[in-house]
Amino acid sequence: MPQNLLVAQSGGPTAVINSSVCGIVEEALQHGKIRGIYGAINGILGVLSEDLVDLRGEDTSTIRNLRRTPSAALGSCRYKLSDRDYSRLYDVLTAHDIGYFLCAGGNDSMDTAHKIAKLAAERKYELRVMGVPKTVDNDLPVTDHCPGYGSVARFNAIATRDSSLDTEAIYTSDTIKIIETMGRDTGWITASTALAKQTEDDGPHLIYLPERPFIEDSFLKDVKDVYDRLGRVVLSVCEGLKDEKGQFVKASTKGIDTDKFGHAQLGGVGDYLVNLISEKLKIKARYDKPGTIQRVSMQCASQVDLDEAYLVGQVALSRAVEGESDKMVTIIRKRKDPYSSDTGLVDLEKVALRTRSVPDEFINKNSNFVTKEFIDYATPLIGGQLPEYARLRKRKLEMKLPKYI
Amino acid sequence: MPQNLLVAQSGGPTAVINSSVCGIVEEALQHGKIRGIYGAINGILGVLSEDLVDLRGEDTSTIRNLRRTPSAALGSCRYKLSDRDYSRLYDVLTAHDIGYFLCAGGNDSMDTAHKIAKLAAERKYELRVMGVPKTVDNDLPVTDHCPGYGSVARFNAIATRDSSLDTEAIYTSDTIKIIETMGRDTGWITASTALAKQTEDDGPHLIYLPERPFIEDSFLKDVKDVYDRLGRVVLSVCEGLKDEKGQFVKASTKGIDTDKFGHAQLGGVGDYLVNLISEKLKIKARYDKPGTIQRVSMQCASQVDLDEAYLVGQVALSRAVEGESDKMVTIIRKRKDPYSSDTGLVDLEKVALRTRSVPDEFINKNSNFVTKEFIDYATPLIGGQLPEYARLRKRKLEMKLPKYI
Repeated sequence: MPQNLLVAQSGGPTAVINSSVCGIVEEALQHGKIRGIYGAINGILGVLSEDLVDLRGEDTSTIRNLRRTPSAALGSCRYKLSDRDYSRLYDVLTAHDIGYFLCAGGNDSMDTAHKIAKLAAERKYELRVMGVPKTVDNDLPVTDHCPGYGSVARFNAIATRDSSLDTEAIYTSDTIKIIETMGRDTGWITASTALAKQTEDDGPHLIYLPERPFIEDSFLKDVKDVYDRLGRVVLSVCEGLKDEKGQFVKASTKGIDTDKFGHAQLGGVGDYLVNLISEKLKIKARYDKPGTIQRVSMQCASQVDLDEAYLVGQVALSRAVEGESDKMVTIIRKRKDPYSSDTGLVDLEKVALRTRSVPDEFINKNSNFVTKEFIDYATPLIGGQLPEYARLRKRKLEMKLPKYI
Repeated sequence: MPQNLLVAQSGGPTAVINSSVCGIVEEALQHGKIRGIYGAINGILGVLSEDLVDLRGEDTSTIRNLRRTPSAALGSCRYKLSDRDYSRLYDVLTAHDIGYFLCAGGNDSMDTAHKIAKLAAERKYELRVMGVPKTVDNDLPVTDHCPGYGSVARFNAIATRDSSLDTEAIYTSDTIKIIETMGRDTGWITASTALAKQTEDDGPHLIYLPERPFIEDSFLKDVKDVYDRLGRVVLSVCEGLKDEKGQFVKASTKGIDTDKFGHAQLGGVGDYLVNLISEKLKIKARYDKPGTIQRVSMQCASQVDLDEAYLVGQVALSRAVEGESDKMVTIIRKRKDPYSSDTGLVDLEKVALRTRSVPDEFINKNSNFVTKEFIDYATPLIGGQLPEYARLRKRKLEMKLPKYI
């Protein structure tokens, strides 16, 4: 059978997708069966255009350092394949004697990988295709969670804790803070802001996920209630919030741009809600929108996530060598406390193009926060405690003068 | 003379203003002359309302941990004092036998501190007033730089490096990335994104500061030029960008809200430019707006900044005990390489309400980037190297098939 390995990265970058590539390559170096270790530049586009690089030509220290390098070192793309393209992919794979094709990506990529596996099977070309899960969105089915999620969750938990402390500090200004997180169709990322909270009065006070329709009146009432109680509100919203009609609450650009897969480019809901609050409640608000920074922050990466990303890469390679194909590696939660995980395999077909939303039991009844079940689920994934900050006891001095303000 | 110390924090939180409070309190604990060590809750508002706390009532470990706690532990405010208020401040200070009033803040706070010092002098009340510089904006005059700046600069340098790597990775989408930084009147924060750049092709490619009028046509031409050369653009803009008429390019909320000092609440220029680029250049863009997260990120704090913030607090206290008053502590750059600093004193009057813009020699001729002089100035302040990421050599494989795309 063909003896060369081709690795591709796909979709949005994360803090840990390079860790998966490192796992794949370092494992491949251990297997005598594998000759060439190649990388596709910019994912599937690099395969189509035969833009391939020799990963054996890299220093081992560079490969090792991928574990601490965010984004996608081989480059990525968002590209919808045509039928004609599949034929070309096949030609490139055979021309380079590729026996192992490993692709790290989300559900679009798993679909592509599955179709390549099918085509090779039809043409009786011995190709082992393995999917390596990767998406900050955490929306792949079957796997307990996706590499990339733990790190974006840690970033948002820390950012929300910091930003809440900021909001708490300034009396009489910036009293409502909106944190707009990523999340096209699902609220996993937005939900992770809840991990910032230690006491009832800490932010975030409210969380809005796209799994529930966004109802302006309820939102304004929620905000007003917290504001009346505390004099401040910290809330997080998903960029993909939709109204009762299923329309995006706000997209960033005029009209809604869509990418090659027909997904809308989002962002801007924070700005929209700042205006809404200012108009309807007459309270000053501002928003933070960490944008792409949240998905590639190595400073806030989760060690659990980095390690699991490496592991799924390693496992994908070794199982392919053992003969598996047309599968994605999954993460299985073995133990809750202390957390430990294992890996499994699932047919690519079962994950391709499917989206896993935040389940009902993770969302509270009022649709404005997450439940303890979610906190239990997400806590181990962010890789250890968040920073603990000093809180002054603030023992009051006795007042000596008449009241002034 | 009165023997009690009162500490207040003012203006926007930073990653290091608590470090200054720690410096003040730990130094005060060394001085037998100082009896009560008090804190004002929410800055000057706490003084007016006699909302004071006993900092000797805090555990020493809590005080110590302030060095790693962002935001403002005593609380802050933005409040414009009336003439009547000054009289009340005087009453509260005398009622609590305050002999030392130390205030950490920006130029508004230095004005307040100066007026309190003047009033006490007029009334022959023995009060020593010291200003502790603090502002992420880095716009206080006389001092080489302001505590708070090194950390926000480090955050933005790292965020820009990460976000650039993100933009570089995805071929054919998100090709223009705008990073919107804080900065009301000056471009110090925006300029710091330049520290992310290692090679000519790295982001940021363009930087726009409020020190230069924002001219739409030049901006679009700059963007197009970089895009044509690299196929991507990473640029940073200041939230306070103004056009040739001196009008803000874009404010976040409908109409421009102003705070108690008449400063406009900004934010939203990133969104505005995304639309502009999309309309005029027909290229997809997106923006990151870390917002308040940038000013309170302890994960990305600069150790040099943390140490200097502590030092200026310590020095403010010890110089006050020695008899100084109506002064602000400054930072003096003693040596360039290796960097070392010293402290000095300046009359509060000379810094109150004054703003230091980014000087001409730090901005390039085309008004779209900073100069090497700025890089040399800012590099030591961010406290050590930024994270170094792996770069693959990408040795190309020989192509075996005809060109396809």
